[in-house]
Formats: sequence, structure tokens, C-alpha cells
Amino acid sequence: MDVLFTFVPRENQQERLQAEFPEVNFRFLYKNKSFLPTADIVVTYGEDLTAEDIESADNLKWIMVASAGIEKMPHAAIAKKGIIVSNVKGIHKTPMAESALAHLLSLKRSLPFIYENQRNREWNRKTKSSELAGSTAVLFGPGAIGSEIGRLLQAFGVKTIGCNRSGNDAEYMDEMVSIENVSAVLPNADIVLSVLPSTKETYHLLKKEHFQAMKEDAIFMNLGRGDLVEDQVMLEALESGEIGYAILDVFEEEPLPADHPYWKMDNVIISPHVSSHSGKYVERALDVFIPNLHAWIKGDKSPSNPVDMKRGY
Amino acid sequence: MDVLFTFVPRENQQERLQAEFPEVNFRFLYKNKSFLPTADIVVTYGEDLTAEDIESADNLKWIMVASAGIEKMPHAAIAKKGIIVSNVKGIHKTPMAESALAHLLSLKRSLPFIYENQRNREWNRKTKSSELAGSTAVLFGPGAIGSEIGRLLQAFGVKTIGCNRSGNDAEYMDEMVSIENVSAVLPNADIVLSVLPSTKETYHLLKKEHFQAMKEDAIFMNLGRGDLVEDQVMLEALESGEIGYAILDVFEEEPLPADHPYWKMDNVIISPHVSSHSGKYVERALDVFIPNLHAWIKGDKSPSNPVDMKRGY
Repeated sequence: MDVLFTFVPRENQQERLQAEFPEVNFRFLYKNKSFLPTADIVVTYGEDLTAEDIESADNLKWIMVASAGIEKMPHAAIAKKGIIVSNVKGIHKTPMAESALAHLLSLKRSLPFIYENQRNREWNRKTKSSELAGSTAVLFGPGAIGSEIGRLLQAFGVKTIGCNRSGNDAEYMDEMVSIENVSAVLPNADIVLSVLPSTKETYHLLKKEHFQAMKEDAIFMNLGRGDLVEDQVMLEALESGEIGYAILDVFEEEPLPADHPYWKMDNVIISPHVSSHSGKYVERALDVFIPNLHAWIKGDKSPSNPVDMKRGY
Repeated sequence: MDVLFTFVPRENQQERLQAEFPEVNFRFLYKNKSFLPTADIVVTYGEDLTAEDIESADNLKWIMVASAGIEKMPHAAIAKKGIIVSNVKGIHKTPMAESALAHLLSLKRSLPFIYENQRNREWNRKTKSSELAGSTAVLFGPGAIGSEIGRLLQAFGVKTIGCNRSGNDAEYMDEMVSIENVSAVLPNADIVLSVLPSTKETYHLLKKEHFQAMKEDAIFMNLGRGDLVEDQVMLEALESGEIGYAILDVFEEEPLPADHPYWKMDNVIISPHVSSHSGKYVERALDVFIPNLHAWIKGDKSPSNPVDMKRGY
């Protein structure tokens, strides 16, 4: 059996795989797809496969995406050939939730101000610190990651309002609201946070009227995908003071163009799509992959975290 | 009855006090002590009273300190006249615990790196992000503030080891150790954090051997008082790589002198004694003071959070 990784795990991780599966022929090749035509399984970050690649992959039965975002995959070509796709959804929740809390607490507790004064070697105690405690947060997409963020926000004494299509209950949410009715709760939110994936339904989902409904000092945070909000809508909300602050980890165009207005704005935090980064990442992805591969070899062709190529998540 | 504030609450807070106590003569005078000789009660941040002041205060029966640190008070003079002292211990716990988590998460999730790249208008994804989850923290002083930090650390999946004189149990600590035996657990700690007050016993409590026992990449955080560690010991620990990082909110000399080596070190965060700052601070102090003053007027001379001037906390 041939397993192609289109990224290169650390030496000890490669050894771990080879020791677990002496019968498997592993190839670890950074963005090199020359072995795709013979590969039975591909492990990828999900950004490097084209419809042509899929056409050429005669033996391919399973694509394991070591990431959560699958919007850059050639969905139709994969669906047509009936290739199974799975991802590692759960493994992002810890680093992403920690990033969400890091950014929110940093603003509330004046860390940018503290760092700036230190850089200028200035002892300046005139902070405008406030507290996360007692805030209200609206969370779009209370799934694995969103609920983990909700759990931590609740620990800080934040009221959490989850927002999904149905408005049905989700974990660690004090209240729920459907996307349709979200405008009713936005005026109460000190924090509006999205971890929504990119799908047809989430494309430009947040509109001018949503930002107009928010508090003037609301913090908007997008850790999901950049196409949730049209750039122009986001810029107007920030420039006109409809909201106070945006913490953006994702953008309509990535990398963010060098001449983008965000770079000059002092009420935007530009995080270059790194909220899921973690030194523990590949290790955790292998913790998901290894039992799935054992099962696969024994004939169980239903890996955990299957992804529906038609639905998009 | 005369009540002297040596700081000036906001207009609406002054009105709140006067409305609650129409019979009381309040004076709100920033660092002006001319009315001390006639004051029955003084409300102070605890940094502006001398032994001579206490001598001259013929009517003074109660000093309410709207802060937790009382080491700058003239203890002997106060104890001699039998003046009751109380503070607002509990009200620091939320802002201080949020600052502690803000600083730790910021380092783990690469916020200084993200901010720096944004300043340089550079899209740079080469973070070295790690996670707070799975760490071990040793907390010196697991009282009101320390336990609140412990509670939040536990929510992030951090193992908490509390350290006090007795080694007796404290809230939100997975384990306890006495100060005497702390060297046995320091080698396991990713984070070593102190919120200890300044007392005879805590003066230069942490010594070279303690830092030598810590991990090379340990984060040391001092939110208590600067005289916990001698400057020279702290500098050597940071320069020789005995520890990885120091987050210091308190210093042996404050303001930190302009020529202090810390200003040039890139493994030190200089937070200018602001971790307890919060827009909600004075409001909360009044929430403590008002019921105590009502009781005092009715004859109950035992305000909450009494401070023992002999013991020092």
C-alpha cells in the first residue's frame, strides 16, 4: 500500500508511522505530487490538489486532510470518483480557542499598550484596561472549535450566545439563536466571533445591517474564513465606527495584499491565518490518522471525521 | 462624621456616596491630607500616609485601603493608636487573573510576533506558537487572587501546584507544596507565578537555587511584589538561560529606572504595575466600602477584610 504525504512530518514522526505500519510504503514529499498516480491514500493540508490531480490518481481511495478547511479541494472531481475524504476537525480546537482568548484578553488587559511602552522604554501606567468578565459574546458556528471557545469564555464569566442555522442547542452556549434571527441579539454583544467554514451559505453572510446592529465598541473576531464578510462591508464598519475593533485571522484575499487599507488601521489586528498553529499539530493529526489507517488496512473503510464533498464540511 | 478620600472617585461615584450617606461629610482630595486632623475615616490607595500623618489624625478610627498592598503604610504608628485597617482584597482577583492569563496566552500564541509583523506590514506566518494546555504551573500565594488564576489555568488544562507556608490545601490547586519544599516541584513547572505580598517572610524569598531548579524554558511571572526576588538574581537567571522568560508587573524599584538592564532584554515583559487596573475598580471598592460604612455608622466597628498591621496582610 502506498501512502503519500504532501507535507513532511518531523523525522521522529516519520519513524513512528513506519514502525506502526512496516508493510506500508510511505512517501513524505513537500508539495510534490509525482507519486500521486500510484498512491492509495493521500495525506494533505488540503490546499494542493487539483481536479487534474484527482483524475490522474488511479488508485486513490482516501484523502486524509490534516486540516479543517477543505474549500480549496476539487469537490466535484473527488465526489465523482467516490474517493473518501476525512479531516481532523477536533484537533484545532485547543490552539484556536487559546488564540481567541489570547487576542480578547490582550485587548482588554492593554497588552498592545504595555508592549509599545516597553519598546519605547517608557514606564507608562495610563492603561485603559477593562475586563472580559461580564461581557456578552455571540459565536457564529458553535461546533467543536466554537464550543471550546464558549467553554473558556464562560470560565471568564462571559455570557455566550451561539448562532447556527437551526438555532438548536450547542455545548457551552447560554443561549442559542438562528442565523435568521441574529440581529435581535447583536445589539447586546460586546464580542462577535465567527469560526464558520466557507460554504455557499456562509459566503458574505454578514452584511452591513449586522454591523450596524452591533455596539459601537464591539470587538468583531473572524477565525473562520475571510469570505464571511465582504471587504468593503468590513472596512465601512470599522471606518464609520459601527464597531470598535476587528481581530482578523482570515481575509478575503490571503496573503493580505500589501496595499490593503487594514494595514494602516489602528482598530484592526491582522493575524496572518495562524490561529490554529501549534507545535503539537502534526503529532495530533497522526493520533487521528494512525488508528484510522489500522482500521482501513483491516477493511474498515470509514475513517473518523468523514467530510461530505457535496455539502462542503 | 468626616470621611476623607485621598483619591477622587468619578462624579457619579461621589454622588452615589453622598446619596447613600446624607449625614456624612465627604471630602475627595487627591493626595491632599490637610483634612486628616479631623477625619474619622480615611479611604486611601495606601501609599500616601506617614507616621506623622497618623500622629496628627486625632479622630481617625478606620483606614479603608482601596488596594491590597499595605506595605507602604506606617504599620507601627497605626497599630499603636489602635486604628482599624481594612482593604479590598477580593476585588483585584478578576483583573489580575485576566492579566495573568492574557500574558501567558499572548506568549504561547505568538501575539508579540503577530503585532510586530503587523507594525512592519509584513504577512509572516512563521509563528512558533505553542499551547498553554498540558502545562504545569507553580503558584506562590494561592489566596483570593492566586486561586482565581488557578481556576482559569485549570480551565485551560494546566496542572496547578499551589505553594504556601504550610503546604495546606488551597482552592483550584491540583497539588500543594510548602515553600520549604518547593524546589522539589520547580523542575516540573512550565510556569512559575507569584502573587505574594511584600512581608518579612517573602523578602528575597526566591533565590538563585530556585531559578536553577526551573526548566530552561520556564516562564516566571511576578504579579505580587518586586522584592520577592533580588534584581541581581533575576538578571542572572535570565541572562544565563536558567529560565526562558520573565513577565514582571512589579519591580524592586518602581518606576523601573530608565537605565535598568530589563529594558534591553528580549526575554522580559515589563508591565508597569498595572495588572490590577480596571475600569471597574473604584466602583467595586465602593461596593465593599458602602455596606461597611453603613454598619460602622450603626456601631459595628468590624469592617470586612480587616488587615493585621503587625502581620502585614
